Amino acid sequence: MLFERIESEGIAHYSYLIGEGTQAAVIDPRRDCEIYIKKAAAGGMRIEAILETHRNEDYVIGSVELGRKTGARILHADARLPYVYGEPAEEGRTVRIGGLTIRPILTPGHTTGHMSYLLSDPTGAPWVLFSGDTLFAGDIGRVDLLGMDRAEELAGLLYDSIVGKILPLGDHVILCPAHGSGSVCAADIAERSLTTIGLERLHNPKLRFENRASFVAANARELERPPYFLMMERLNLESPPVLDTLPTPAVLSPDLFEKMMGASLVLDTRMELSFASAHIPGALSIWEAGLPSFAGWFLDYDRPILLVTETPETSRTVRYLVRLGFDRIAGTLAGGMLGWHMAGKNSARVNTVTAEDISCSLDEGGLRADRPFILDVRSLRELETAGRISGAHHIHITALPLRLDEVPKERPVFIFCGSGLRSTIAASLLERAGYPRPTVILGGLSGWKSASCPVEK
Amino acid sequence: MLFERIESEGIAHYSYLIGEGTQAAVIDPRRDCEIYIKKAAAGGMRIEAILETHRNEDYVIGSVELGRKTGARILHADARLPYVYGEPAEEGRTVRIGGLTIRPILTPGHTTGHMSYLLSDPTGAPWVLFSGDTLFAGDIGRVDLLGMDRAEELAGLLYDSIVGKILPLGDHVILCPAHGSGSVCAADIAERSLTTIGLERLHNPKLRFENRASFVAANARELERPPYFLMMERLNLESPPVLDTLPTPAVLSPDLFEKMMGASLVLDTRMELSFASAHIPGALSIWEAGLPSFAGWFLDYDRPILLVTETPETSRTVRYLVRLGFDRIAGTLAGGMLGWHMAGKNSARVNTVTAEDISCSLDEGGLRADRPFILDVRSLRELETAGRISGAHHIHITALPLRLDEVPKERPVFIFCGSGLRSTIAASLLERAGYPRPTVILGGLSGWKSASCPVEK
Amino acid sequence: MLFERIESEGIAHYSYLIGEGTQAAVIDPRRDCEIYIKKAAAGGMRIEAILETHRNEDYVIGSVELGRKTGARILHADARLPYVYGEPAEEGRTVRIGGLTIRPILTPGHTTGHMSYLLSDPTGAPWVLFSGDTLFAGDIGRVDLLGMDRAEELAGLLYDSIVGKILPLGDHVILCPAHGSGSVCAADIAERSLTTIGLERLHNPKLRFENRASFVAANARELERPPYFLMMERLNLESPPVLDTLPTPAVLSPDLFEKMMGASLVLDTRMELSFASAHIPGALSIWEAGLPSFAGWFLDYDRPILLVTETPETSRTVRYLVRLGFDRIAGTLAGGMLGWHMAGKNSARVNTVTAEDISCSLDEGGLRADRPFILDVRSLRELETAGRISGAHHIHITALPLRLDEVPKERPVFIFCGSGLRSTIAASLLERAGYPRPTVILGGLSGWKSASCPVEK
Amino acid sequence: MLFERIESEGIAHYSYLIGEGTQAAVIDPRRDCEIYIKKAAAGGMRIEAILETHRNEDYVIGSVELGRKTGARILHADARLPYVYGEPAEEGRTVRIGGLTIRPILTPGHTTGHMSYLLSDPTGAPWVLFSGDTLFAGDIGRVDLLGMDRAEELAGLLYDSIVGKILPLGDHVILCPAHGSGSVCAADIAERSLTTIGLERLHNPKLRFENRASFVAANARELERPPYFLMMERLNLESPPVLDTLPTPAVLSPDLFEKMMGASLVLDTRMELSFASAHIPGALSIWEAGLPSFAGWFLDYDRPILLVTETPETSRTVRYLVRLGFDRIAGTLAGGMLGWHMAGKNSARVNTVTAEDISCSLDEGGLRADRPFILDVRSLRELETAGRISGAHHIHITALPLRLDEVPKERPVFIFCGSGLRSTIAASLLERAGYPRPTVILGGLSGWKSASCPVEK
Repeated sequence: MLFERIESEGIAHYSYLIGEGTQAAVIDPRRDCEIYIKKAAAGGMRIEAILETHRNEDYVIGSVELGRKTGARILHADARLPYVYGEPAEEGRTVRIGGLTIRPILTPGHTTGHMSYLLSDPTGAPWVLFSGDTLFAGDIGRVDLLGMDRAEELAGLLYDSIVGKILPLGDHVILCPAHGSGSVCAADIAERSLTTIGLERLHNPKLRFENRASFVAANARELERPPYFLMMERLNLESPPVLDTLPTPAVLSPDLFEKMMGASLVLDTRMELSFASAHIPGALSIWEAGLPSFAGWFLDYDRPILLVTETPETSRTVRYLVRLGFDRIAGTLAGGMLGWHMAGKNSARVNTVTAEDISCSLDEGGLRADRPFILDVRSLRELETAGRISGAHHIHITALPLRLDEVPKERPVFIFCGSGLRSTIAASLLERAGYPRPTVILGGLSGWKSASCPVEK
Repeated sequence: MLFERIESEGIAHYSYLIGEGTQAAVIDPRRDCEIYIKKAAAGGMRIEAILETHRNEDYVIGSVELGRKTGARILHADARLPYVYGEPAEEGRTVRIGGLTIRPILTPGHTTGHMSYLLSDPTGAPWVLFSGDTLFAGDIGRVDLLGMDRAEELAGLLYDSIVGKILPLGDHVILCPAHGSGSVCAADIAERSLTTIGLERLHNPKLRFENRASFVAANARELERPPYFLMMERLNLESPPVLDTLPTPAVLSPDLFEKMMGASLVLDTRMELSFASAHIPGALSIWEAGLPSFAGWFLDYDRPILLVTETPETSRTVRYLVRLGFDRIAGTLAGGMLGWHMAGKNSARVNTVTAEDISCSLDEGGLRADRPFILDVRSLRELETAGRISGAHHIHITALPLRLDEVPKERPVFIFCGSGLRSTIAASLLERAGYPRPTVILGGLSGWKSASCPVEK
Repeated sequence: MLFERIESEGIAHYSYLIGEGTQAAVIDPRRDCEIYIKKAAAGGMRIEAILETHRNEDYVIGSVELGRKTGARILHADARLPYVYGEPAEEGRTVRIGGLTIRPILTPGHTTGHMSYLLSDPTGAPWVLFSGDTLFAGDIGRVDLLGMDRAEELAGLLYDSIVGKILPLGDHVILCPAHGSGSVCAADIAERSLTTIGLERLHNPKLRFENRASFVAANARELERPPYFLMMERLNLESPPVLDTLPTPAVLSPDLFEKMMGASLVLDTRMELSFASAHIPGALSIWEAGLPSFAGWFLDYDRPILLVTETPETSRTVRYLVRLGFDRIAGTLAGGMLGWHMAGKNSARVNTVTAEDISCSLDEGGLRADRPFILDVRSLRELETAGRISGAHHIHITALPLRLDEVPKERPVFIFCGSGLRSTIAASLLERAGYPRPTVILGGLSGWKSASCPVEK
Repeated sequence: MLFERIESEGIAHYSYLIGEGTQAAVIDPRRDCEIYIKKAAAGGMRIEAILETHRNEDYVIGSVELGRKTGARILHADARLPYVYGEPAEEGRTVRIGGLTIRPILTPGHTTGHMSYLLSDPTGAPWVLFSGDTLFAGDIGRVDLLGMDRAEELAGLLYDSIVGKILPLGDHVILCPAHGSGSVCAADIAERSLTTIGLERLHNPKLRFENRASFVAANARELERPPYFLMMERLNLESPPVLDTLPTPAVLSPDLFEKMMGASLVLDTRMELSFASAHIPGALSIWEAGLPSFAGWFLDYDRPILLVTETPETSRTVRYLVRLGFDRIAGTLAGGMLGWHMAGKNSARVNTVTAEDISCSLDEGGLRADRPFILDVRSLRELETAGRISGAHHIHITALPLRLDEVPKERPVFIFCGSGLRSTIAASLLERAGYPRPTVILGGLSGWKSASCPVEK
């Protein structure tokens, strides 16, 4: 028997490969899907079914890609949406994979036609629930994606699905959701990488409610929604372009790279310190491991992407971008920034300071700057749990492009996040918007607190 | 956070690597332990604790090897045994790995000082129980290893551990035992690769009892015990020789190989059909994937091993042998059997027939042989569940060397197992004992039944 | 700088990846071309040129596949042939790859428009000649592919190319041909895996001639030509189907496999002993490593292929078949022969004997058979160099399907090759043609001689 | 047959694995020697001989390590030195590896007892010369290692070896030296990764001489000698400590790391821009790929090393250090600099400018600094070939620690190299010596020239 969780790091997307005898199935495959085929083949199995839990909005689903390569049939959820591929999964129509049985269960809430799949073990006992975006470790699926006017309705459906269908399966059933800690599909997923229905019943804070009404009231709330969700929703109905293999970006000389910069976006995936030290003027900074979380907020589908990377090996970067549908990668800078400088080209810097540098003080004494503007780009939740810095102005990093008018151009801007990574994204956004040399606080709030600097709760 | 199960295939041994922040721990490491170090390092962690659940008897534990390479401290169980390494784990002395907590729980039964380890998640909630050889998916630990005179006592302790300590942790707690399906440490482990305390409470047939006495009565039974257990028990107290790296066997020319055969055991790890077709006279057949299960029954620690393999790549074979403490590998045959034949050397064969060949009939008509002796080498349990062949004499493969006197030398011997693999081991054992050309039934009982041949229940 | 030879084992095809700065080129790429892209990308290079030395006849060239994936331009040779892709390479039109220079040199002989490519090192000194199928280590290209009526003409052209263009480049120039030892493109390639023009001038037996006429006389000879050459020649002009990724064969249950056998060819890629022991009746035996050499002789493009393999991992087998254009792989047998037998299905055997078994005697005494027919399937060259067995009838394995009428059906057939591998192919061909149980001599002539059995020179 | 060159990148050390039949040999193995064993085993071979060309001074030779793991015998050169292991290779005592023959040839010059090894192909023809440090592509071995008083004597011996023994083997013989481009064992090795005796005879500038005397005069010159050579020379006689496996450094929390800094050297292996942006005050900068070339100049064997790396994966860094005998690696910083800053700790910066920043002008107008001191740390040879910057003071990076008194502490220091990498090493050396904030010119001379800034020839 084969039971494996395949994690797409960064978007914290979990897909699952299960198999018995010579047959295998995949739940919610990702687009770079060769891994499923390889693992199934190594076990003498062939993938015969692909099961989607819902019309995904946070990544390009790999069903069509994987189906084309294996001939597997595709069962999708959300039957009422105008899918151009596959056939709808239905309650009552059980799927058999070797000696295993998979029973579809309609669990609306996150979407109106969301399906969960209950896997029985070879003896027939209910064993694992693939709960998609309904119930996570420590959190539940968001219900705001159809608009806030339908959020209460969906929250109610979600309550019914969880209370009426999932919890009754029993504390002992293993719960395998579509996301782990770090996903944009739920704010507060716990770091419990394996969980059970009972663990959630006991420890999931979202399942502490008095009744349906209080559950709805508490959870019909709006979360951030990256602009790329719209594209994902469209692609995941209409079938994304088939990739076959990951694209290999052209390796461009500094001169050619510079020529192509006008029509493209320069995306720099190096770490925050490298970017701060020197970058191509106007480049957007998102460190490689941050791409799955942040690329969807700041890239757009209409402009080709030019990459600046730490090493010549770009396959992980490409993988992350392609998972979000950013297929138009125009090239990568030959030799990276070293090559750029050796070609005699100029670069820009980001100012940095540490907490100690500024003596724990963001007033004029500490910063030695005129009326510094302190910008905190952490999430609201982080502010609540980790505390605030006195006098800081809060704009979550994801909202910064839309709220730039709140940041004064004539004052020195000092940027905080948790560590310094997101601050560097913010610094690059400000630089692109014409702000003169914003400053990143290295170590962010974590460093600030470690250096015993004052924090407001 | 890092949570990974490392499976040693064949002995179905599960070890676990857990980590948080910069610290990691391993539960019951195997001897070829580079995998733990590599995975921890990739996550920026260092292994700081090694936890043993009990003095293992079925493989060489890697605690000393791993401890030497990492500097980690070793906590062993069975505190009253005269360990030459590590320190005893104790209830009440919690181990911290980054933000994770591991609480030792004394759970005697399989051994008198067996420890389980309860891991809490980062929020402090009890999350995973590492139950060692106490409770498995679908089975419980064996209690006969100290002799049958103490089996009832140990079965009683096991009852107390399971009923008094493990089940009360709750249905929702994930259960991570030391073995999966296929282990010699329990007869009936289920193919449920992930399980929970609740799944076992509901579906584990060994947990259906009326009271302590009936549990003891049902479970204080003797199981087979491979001869290598004695060596494992000794090594796992005294500390096995440190390997550093897996040994690379000498590649021996057919002439040299032949010269060395006198003082050594020739072990042929090719598949059953290759062995049947041609093998070095006197070679013992155990197909590679069967080594973890069967090598301990038929090899001895005093004779060097000479290998005949399908391909020149022997690292998996060596790994399997070394895990059982068979470190004395004198060499491997250059060019395999092809090289042997090209060197003009002679080989032996095993007769084979299919069910259809003998028209489903093992009497004289079917076999066209004088008074055939039908030898069934399956386990008693397989006989019970899958049925018997009329007129067959049953000796489990593991007992065959001790019960050869039950097999007549002057009659043609036809050997059955489930598939043909263990029959080929049996055929090689008979050949070594001087039996003229025993015959293997290809497909075994499975083929027999598929061909609609008659089976007694 | 990047300079790497990529060897396709089996057909002993050598392709070359060279690169400097950010640019790379490939000489004669194979169809499964991801390796070039990966290696170039790891060095920060992009493949910008693909150079063909000639219209290849012995494998599917990967130019179109690689060109599609990289955007590289394709330069082909044999400009007068009606290519549907690329542009012709021309003398005088130098190719630059970073700081390296590649100069095309017209070297007809193997084909009428064959090109060699002279690579200069970064200082501009002539350094490496990619000689395609003109000059090999120890041999020269064959000249019979346009028919024997043009062989003398082509042999003359080959003389002119070697004597007039290649040797004058100097003894010190490194020679990189398109094939190594084992190719069907030349009979006698030496086991010198690296060579120079001087090593060939001194040690290549084909370059020991008195004058052009004697060279032509000696070398305008006909070699064997596998039937698949015709398909390769067509595909390599017309552009083969683009694969994108290697196909993954369907894993078929024994029942389904059996149903599909009527319309397909069963190809068994296990080693000779496994096949001899038990195989699906009517299966063709070609051991996996023998596929590149022998599949082209015995498979045809019109029948789907069903695979029987030793392990579930079939990617190498698929790779070998696809390189020869055998893309129609209908499936693979789930569980291999073990699964087949467990499904109660019947199998066939091949008789085997060793030299010792038959006391070095193939007459009636030795073989204990009526008027045995001894079939030697080695090549003529092997007969000349290694000797003959008295009384054996010689038909090279590749010619066996066309000369079956020379093998009597009513006599026991004993088959010899060098080792036992090709004999097993022969045995399967005879079995398919209705011969009752042919016998393979294990160890072949090598074993025969090692056992001190008599050989005629 | 097996013929493979194994390259240790960075020190550009070439070792060679050759094999035939079941036997293999390694020429000049490196210390992390598992690669030879693995490759030989994959070909069904066992390493039976280890051949050293000379007592190496630039890396820890792996003969003893490899010998211990394989049982191979070791033949060393320089027979008069007091080796504690192996036996001397001798002219006339041929080594056989399967069907291959290796003939030792005494070729003194680089050392007094240097051996080359002539490999014949399977037909017996001289094929490949392993020339050690005698003759390279484009260069010859250095003769100054026994002191300049013996350099002329050794240069004469080298002349005799090359002219009297190597060149007469013929232009066509393939030449396999112990180093490629980038080695410290010769200044000017060419980027010709494969070469022949003829290519060297024609294109090696060191072989353009009138007579022995002029050769001696031209080549008896002193080259730089890293301080670690002494340790290597000692270890390579006395046998280095056996490693078994690469050490895994402890992962240290920022607090613990900081505590251990007093007694250790902090080595930061990140790229130049990361280091410039922020580093632990007092850290030595050597970017990872530069370790093989520069670690031997700036590290010492008596102080433990603490690592700061870009990613948690440190195995390549450890490999590079261990090859030079730096085995005392005390730990690595958990979380890298991000972790350091999040722990609230302070960091230092290196100033950087680009050519454009300073308007191609290093005088006060361009630099806006009082009397800037321009430090050029390139090699003398680079100054000669690429040109100088007006007014710059030249100290080769390797000599900087010994010549710090030439650099004024009270003036702003601007550092040039070819690209910016070595300048950053220099900046870290200056910072460690108490210089206030030296400045690195990004892009180095290459950027300077690309930006059309003036250079003196």
